[in-house]
Amino acid sequence: MKTVLITAFEPFDGETVNPSWEAVRQLDQRELMGATVVACLLPCEFGQSLVVLKQAINRLRPTLVMATGQAGGRSEVSVERIGINIDDARIADNRGRQPVDQPIVPEGPAAYFATLPIKAMVAAIREAGIPAVISQTAGTYVCNHVLYSLLHYLHHAMPEVRGGFIHIPYLPEQVVARQGQASMSSDNVIRALEAALITALSTEHDIRQTGGATH
Amino acid sequence: MKTVLITAFEPFDGETVNPSWEAVRQLDQRELMGATVVACLLPCEFGQSLVVLKQAINRLRPTLVMATGQAGGRSEVSVERIGINIDDARIADNRGRQPVDQPIVPEGPAAYFATLPIKAMVAAIREAGIPAVISQTAGTYVCNHVLYSLLHYLHHAMPEVRGGFIHIPYLPEQVVARQGQASMSSDNVIRALEAALITALSTEHDIRQTGGATH
Amino acid sequence: MKTVLITAFEPFDGETVNPSWEAVRQLDQRELMGATVVACLLPCEFGQSLVVLKQAINRLRPTLVMATGQAGGRSEVSVERIGINIDDARIADNRGRQPVDQPIVPEGPAAYFATLPIKAMVAAIREAGIPAVISQTAGTYVCNHVLYSLLHYLHHAMPEVRGGFIHIPYLPEQVVARQGQASMSSDNVIRALEAALITALSTEHDIRQTGGATH
Amino acid sequence: MKTVLITAFEPFDGETVNPSWEAVRQLDQRELMGATVVACLLPCEFGQSLVVLKQAINRLRPTLVMATGQAGGRSEVSVERIGINIDDARIADNRGRQPVDQPIVPEGPAAYFATLPIKAMVAAIREAGIPAVISQTAGTYVCNHVLYSLLHYLHHAMPEVRGGFIHIPYLPEQVVARQGQASMSSDNVIRALEAALITALSTEHDIRQTGGATH
Repeated sequence: MKTVLITAFEPFDGETVNPSWEAVRQLDQRELMGATVVACLLPCEFGQSLVVLKQAINRLRPTLVMATGQAGGRSEVSVERIGINIDDARIADNRGRQPVDQPIVPEGPAAYFATLPIKAMVAAIREAGIPAVISQTAGTYVCNHVLYSLLHYLHHAMPEVRGGFIHIPYLPEQVVARQGQASMSSDNVIRALEAALITALSTEHDIRQTGGATH
Repeated sequence: MKTVLITAFEPFDGETVNPSWEAVRQLDQRELMGATVVACLLPCEFGQSLVVLKQAINRLRPTLVMATGQAGGRSEVSVERIGINIDDARIADNRGRQPVDQPIVPEGPAAYFATLPIKAMVAAIREAGIPAVISQTAGTYVCNHVLYSLLHYLHHAMPEVRGGFIHIPYLPEQVVARQGQASMSSDNVIRALEAALITALSTEHDIRQTGGATH
Repeated sequence: MKTVLITAFEPFDGETVNPSWEAVRQLDQRELMGATVVACLLPCEFGQSLVVLKQAINRLRPTLVMATGQAGGRSEVSVERIGINIDDARIADNRGRQPVDQPIVPEGPAAYFATLPIKAMVAAIREAGIPAVISQTAGTYVCNHVLYSLLHYLHHAMPEVRGGFIHIPYLPEQVVARQGQASMSSDNVIRALEAALITALSTEHDIRQTGGATH
Repeated sequence: MKTVLITAFEPFDGETVNPSWEAVRQLDQRELMGATVVACLLPCEFGQSLVVLKQAINRLRPTLVMATGQAGGRSEVSVERIGINIDDARIADNRGRQPVDQPIVPEGPAAYFATLPIKAMVAAIREAGIPAVISQTAGTYVCNHVLYSLLHYLHHAMPEVRGGFIHIPYLPEQVVARQGQASMSSDNVIRALEAALITALSTEHDIRQTGGATH
C-alpha cells in the first residue's frame, strides 16, 4: 500500500500547542485514495528538523510528502508556492539558535517551487467550505527551512516524489484574548488537509487558475 | 418557565447567509439554566426590524434579550458595550433605505449602555476556548439600530429586563476565496452564545476586568 | 479677536513623542478665519487632564474647542462622532492609574455627540489630499475621557461653544521598525488639522454625507 | 561619472498615479556619492517592461540598478529579498494580459536573490526616520517580473552590476476615502530612496541584522 507522509511542528514562540500538529496527529493512519497517511512530528529547530524529516522519508518511502506548520496571524489555510535558500530567524528556534542570512544549502539554488498541485489543492479546500489561498512566501524560519530542504532532497534523491507545505492559522484557543488575531478550528484544518491530500494524490497536472499577488 | 429571547439577522450586503442566524437558529428551544431559549429572525431593515423585535418581546415577556448580528472582518465574538442614537448607513438596508445621520429616537438620549454583564460574558466565552472581546462600537447600521432601540424600549417599558448585543465574525464558507478575512466556525459561535447566555442568566453583578481600548 | 482652543496629549504607553502634540504645537498662535489658535498640552492622566482643559477653556473663552490625541494603528485622521461615559483603561495612565468601568460623570448621560461639523471636516481633510474618516468610538481611555468631559462641560457651562476630538495616526519615526503599522507625516497632520479648524469655524450646519459603519 | 539607474512604474489597477514614479522622477539627475541618478519609467506590462529596462541598462551601463513599484496596502518601504521565476497575474496588466503560472524564463532558475545590500538599506531608511522592512516576496505580478528578469539579466550579462527592488506604499491622496489603507508621503519616499541609494553605493558587504519572517 502506498504511504503519504505528512509532517507538523511542535509548539514554538511561547505557545503550548501547534495547530499543525493538533490537526496532523488526527490524520495518522487514515486511509485516503488507497494510501496510508503517516503523521510525523518535527522539532522546531534548524538542522534537527531535517534529520527527523529525512529519517521518516527514508523509512517510509512515501508517494508524496506534505509538510505543515503554524502561520500565526493568517486567516486562511495557505498553500506555499516556493521555498527559498535562506535562514533568517526573527526569533530563536526551540534550541536557542537564531541564524541570520545563512544559506540552507551553501551550493544550492536560490529556491525550489513546490511540486504538489497547489492550485488544485486550494480549489479543493475552498470547495470544502474552508478559506484557502496560495502563499508566495513561507518566510525564512524553520517552516521555510523544512520546505526548501524537503524539495532539495526530493529533487536529488527521489525526483518522482512530490512535496510541498501548508501553513495553518492559529487555533481559536491560542488567541482567546488577543484582539484582531484570526483563527481556525481544528476540525476545519483537518478537513482542509484531507481535501488537500486527496487532491494531491489524484491530480497529475495542476489546474490553471490565478493565485497570484500584485506584491 | 422563564424565556430568553435571542435574535439574529437575515443575510445582507450581498451575502447568502448570516452567521448570526446560522448559530441562533440552532439554539431555539434549548433549555439553559432553567430558561427556554427562543430564537427570532429580524429583517435587516431600519424600522421593520424593530417592529418584529417588539412583537417578540411583548409576546414572550423574556427574562433577558440578546440580539446578535454579523460583523464581517472581525476575528472574535464581540460583546457590545453601548448603542448610540444615530442611523448612518454606509450601504442600503434590505429594503433599499439608507438613512444618514438620523437619530433613531428623536428625543432619546445619545446612547444606552448594554445591561447584560458584558465582562463576565467575554470571560466565559474565552473560558470556552473561543476568542472574544468587548467592542466599544456596534456601528451605525441596523445592528446598532436594534441595540439602541432595544435598550431604549426595555429602559422605559420593562426596566427589569436586561439586554445587549453580540457581533459574530464571518463563517468560513463566506470567505473561502477572500484573502485576509477572519472567520469563525458555526460550532464555535454556538458554543460562545451558549456560554454568554448561561453567564447572563447567572450573573447579577458584572465582574471587574479591563476590556477597554486606548482609542 | 476670536480664539480657538486646540489641545493635544503628552506621550504615553512608552512612546517618546505624541503625534498630536507634534502637530498641534505648530499651530499655536496661527490665525485662521479671523480667529487665533491657541495650543494646549494635556497630561495623559485621568482627572488631571480635565483640570488643565477646564482652566484653558475658562481662561481663553474660546469659540470652539478641538481636542486631539494619538490613535496608534489607525491609517487615517479620524474625526470622532461621540464620547461615552466610561473609563476602562487597558493600560495605566501616566500617573499609574487604571480605572475599570468607572463612569466619568456618575450622574451624567451615557454619551454626548460631538458638536463640531464632523462630516464637513472629514470632507475638507480629504479635499486636502489626506486620508480621513469618521470614527464611531474614541475608545475608553484618556482620549475619550477628555472628549466626554469636554462635551459635558460645554453642554452645561457654555452651550454655544462647539467641541470635538480628532485622532491622529503614529508618526513615521514611531514605527520605523514595527511591521504593519500605518503612520502619517507631521506635515500632513498639520494640514489636516488646519483644514478641520477652518471648516469648523466656517460651517454652521454639517453636510449630509454618509460616514457610517456596518459594525 | 558613474550612473545609477532607478526605475518606477506607470499607474495600474485603476489608479491615476503610481507612488514609485512620483518619487523616482524627483531623483532624476540627482548626484549621490559621486554618481548620477537616472530615472526611467517602465510600462506596467509583462514583457514590454523588460524591453524598456534592458534598453536603459544597455544605454546607461549603470553601476547599480534599483527598480521600484507600488505595494498598495503595505505600511512601510519594503526592500525585496528575492525575485521568483513565475508570472501569475491576479489582475490584467496595462495591455490586458493576465498570465497564469508561466515561467518568466523557461529554463531559468526558480529564483534570484537581490544583490543589493538589503539589510543595510533597511537600516539606513529607518535611520532617516522612515518605516522600512525586508520583504520576502515581491508577488507574482509585473514588479516581480521586472525584479527576476533584472537579476537574471545582470547575472548573465554584467555580473558586477548589482540590482534589487523596493516596494512603496500608497500615497495619501490615493486613499483619502479608503478606510484602513496605510500610506506614505512622497517626501518620505524620496528620502527613503535617497538613503537606500547612498547605502547601496557605499556598502560592499551587507550588514548582519535579522530581517526574517516566521512565515
